[in-house]
Amino acid sequence: MERQQVVLHMNHGMGDNSYAHNSIIQKRVMREAKGIVEESMMRLYTIIPIHCFKVADLGCSSGPNALQLVSNVIDIVNTTTSNLNLKPPVFQFFLNDLFGNDFNSIFKSLPQFSEIIEEKKGHKCGACFINATPGTFYKSLFPNNFLHFVHSSFSLHWLSQAPKELGNEENVHLTSTTPPAMHEAYLEQFRKDFKLFLKLRSQELVAKGGMVLTLIGMDKSQKTHDIRTAWSLIGTILNDMVLENLIEAIKLECFDLPLYDPTIEEAKEVIEDEGSFTLQRLESVTLDWSTNIKEVVDDDNNNKLDLNTKAEFTTKFIRAALEPLLKAKFGEEIMDELFVRYKNKIVQLIMGVKILEFPTLIISLIKKV
Amino acid sequence: MERQQVVLHMNHGMGDNSYAHNSIIQKRVMREAKGIVEESMMRLYTIIPIHCFKVADLGCSSGPNALQLVSNVIDIVNTTTSNLNLKPPVFQFFLNDLFGNDFNSIFKSLPQFSEIIEEKKGHKCGACFINATPGTFYKSLFPNNFLHFVHSSFSLHWLSQAPKELGNEENVHLTSTTPPAMHEAYLEQFRKDFKLFLKLRSQELVAKGGMVLTLIGMDKSQKTHDIRTAWSLIGTILNDMVLENLIEAIKLECFDLPLYDPTIEEAKEVIEDEGSFTLQRLESVTLDWSTNIKEVVDDDNNNKLDLNTKAEFTTKFIRAALEPLLKAKFGEEIMDELFVRYKNKIVQLIMGVKILEFPTLIISLIKKV
Repeated sequence: MERQQVVLHMNHGMGDNSYAHNSIIQKRVMREAKGIVEESMMRLYTIIPIHCFKVADLGCSSGPNALQLVSNVIDIVNTTTSNLNLKPPVFQFFLNDLFGNDFNSIFKSLPQFSEIIEEKKGHKCGACFINATPGTFYKSLFPNNFLHFVHSSFSLHWLSQAPKELGNEENVHLTSTTPPAMHEAYLEQFRKDFKLFLKLRSQELVAKGGMVLTLIGMDKSQKTHDIRTAWSLIGTILNDMVLENLIEAIKLECFDLPLYDPTIEEAKEVIEDEGSFTLQRLESVTLDWSTNIKEVVDDDNNNKLDLNTKAEFTTKFIRAALEPLLKAKFGEEIMDELFVRYKNKIVQLIMGVKILEFPTLIISLIKKV
Repeated sequence: MERQQVVLHMNHGMGDNSYAHNSIIQKRVMREAKGIVEESMMRLYTIIPIHCFKVADLGCSSGPNALQLVSNVIDIVNTTTSNLNLKPPVFQFFLNDLFGNDFNSIFKSLPQFSEIIEEKKGHKCGACFINATPGTFYKSLFPNNFLHFVHSSFSLHWLSQAPKELGNEENVHLTSTTPPAMHEAYLEQFRKDFKLFLKLRSQELVAKGGMVLTLIGMDKSQKTHDIRTAWSLIGTILNDMVLENLIEAIKLECFDLPLYDPTIEEAKEVIEDEGSFTLQRLESVTLDWSTNIKEVVDDDNNNKLDLNTKAEFTTKFIRAALEPLLKAKFGEEIMDELFVRYKNKIVQLIMGVKILEFPTLIISLIKKV
């Protein structure tokens, strides 16, 4: 697991394939969850006296979204304290991601970010201290009873590791031909990881502390394709490349993506089983894979966009997140070829189904006293 | 100042001129101060009940020294608690440096570092949480009464900015020909910065909290050359390069190094004037500029080393620290030429004086109740 902690990160830098330039879906998810974060924090702020508000963002990544939570929390708390005629608190933020995350680029943007915050809030805003806490969120990251609020956006579908079950040689994730034992192994890994995550956070949060989580989910009743299609296509292409001797078969045989998209029921079961939290909300919102295109071209009618543009955006969204992991396993030299083929597969997929959507789960929890 | 906060950092990476490969003097300074850190922490640990021990290292830089304090503190506290038959505390470390520091490389080394710590200590050691807190230490970095111990090694000779006095056009620091007003302006900037530093840290430390600081000092009675010679030589060379039209004169005119090496008396006066701390110790140790050579070649007789090797080491020590600042002002293209000339000047200097030494101040303080 330690190696995965360094290898796994979103694509660094500001290039065409960087996460910084291909994370509009993640931004959209944060916007969807903002109302629920607001609700959770207002509740918290009115029941616990807080002089220094300690907030952790787990899986913050880098790029334009990395400081979005900080900005949202400051807005929400300042509005709340102003409405209640209370003194605004001091803020202490802890941005977390794996050891290989590009924290340097977040830090370089902080002087400008602080200026904007100070300008917006004037002297009404309490001091804001921003820290980084690198490491996997499947281990303890903070002392007990340290945090008031935990947030994790679009990260908990990353497992601590892919399940070690055999029998999935030609694929990198779950497909219709995957043996049932492999499906069960993925679900079991998710259960184990999510339960551990909840246990650790319940130790780190103060009593009545709040937590809002978003992650990619799965809706079995859904007609359109889910995110597994996007993950599995990687396996189809890698398998083709093995047959063409571009990749060694042994490398593909022992590789599976450490990702899982639980259903609402699967997530709920783990929360109840673990037992430290009261479930406030568990919702599912459906997002279009090509949400990002709409943001960029500012076009309400997604269907008018040409197929090529749609496929290009979807490919970059997937590439920004998966490339470092794939590169470490299969080598940098095949990455461009892999994603050219990937885009072609996405074109075919869109032609077949018209709309590509996947559900995102939004979960709001309160630590029991 | 904000721009300086991003531009100023030690040389990144693992190359020949990197800080990581040229920071043995700094390591030596930490070793010199270890006994005093030990004394300060043992005192602290026996007078305050500490469940979670919060320690900040201000100006941690990157490279092999960045985690040295963490390692030392864990050693000291575990020995102390073991001797006193107490339960070891949980540790929370905050590594600070300017926004441009290479935190990514520290974070990448953490999985291996944690393994070594766990192996060495076994289950006797409390959990150890390592955070980064980027930003200038001339501003608040933590909430009030948050820290138990503050450490800053070889950083406080960096001023928040060079003084804005005129009259130093051809130099980049203080020399024998610098007007007295400029000497006074540098001292005044040091007083202002150091006083602010003490005030901010006294707010962030708990009552009776400890602080150990080391910085380059100045001994007016000293016969051998001090560190100002090394800083000023940069100015001599830049001036030559202006005369040869390799650099625009205007760039040199408005540039001074933001560095100051106070005497024991100057440092003491600021501490007493600021008033938040009781002075426990204020010592001066003399270090050889080429200390690092001795470490590397493991040769007790420094004088036997050839002149060229000595000058090479001294040049790299200075280059690793000053290059990013000089590059931002004068351009990357002249850096190699500048430091080739610098090395030649150092050769001449060593031929003249044989031994190059400078004093380092070690200061141990306790926050008044």
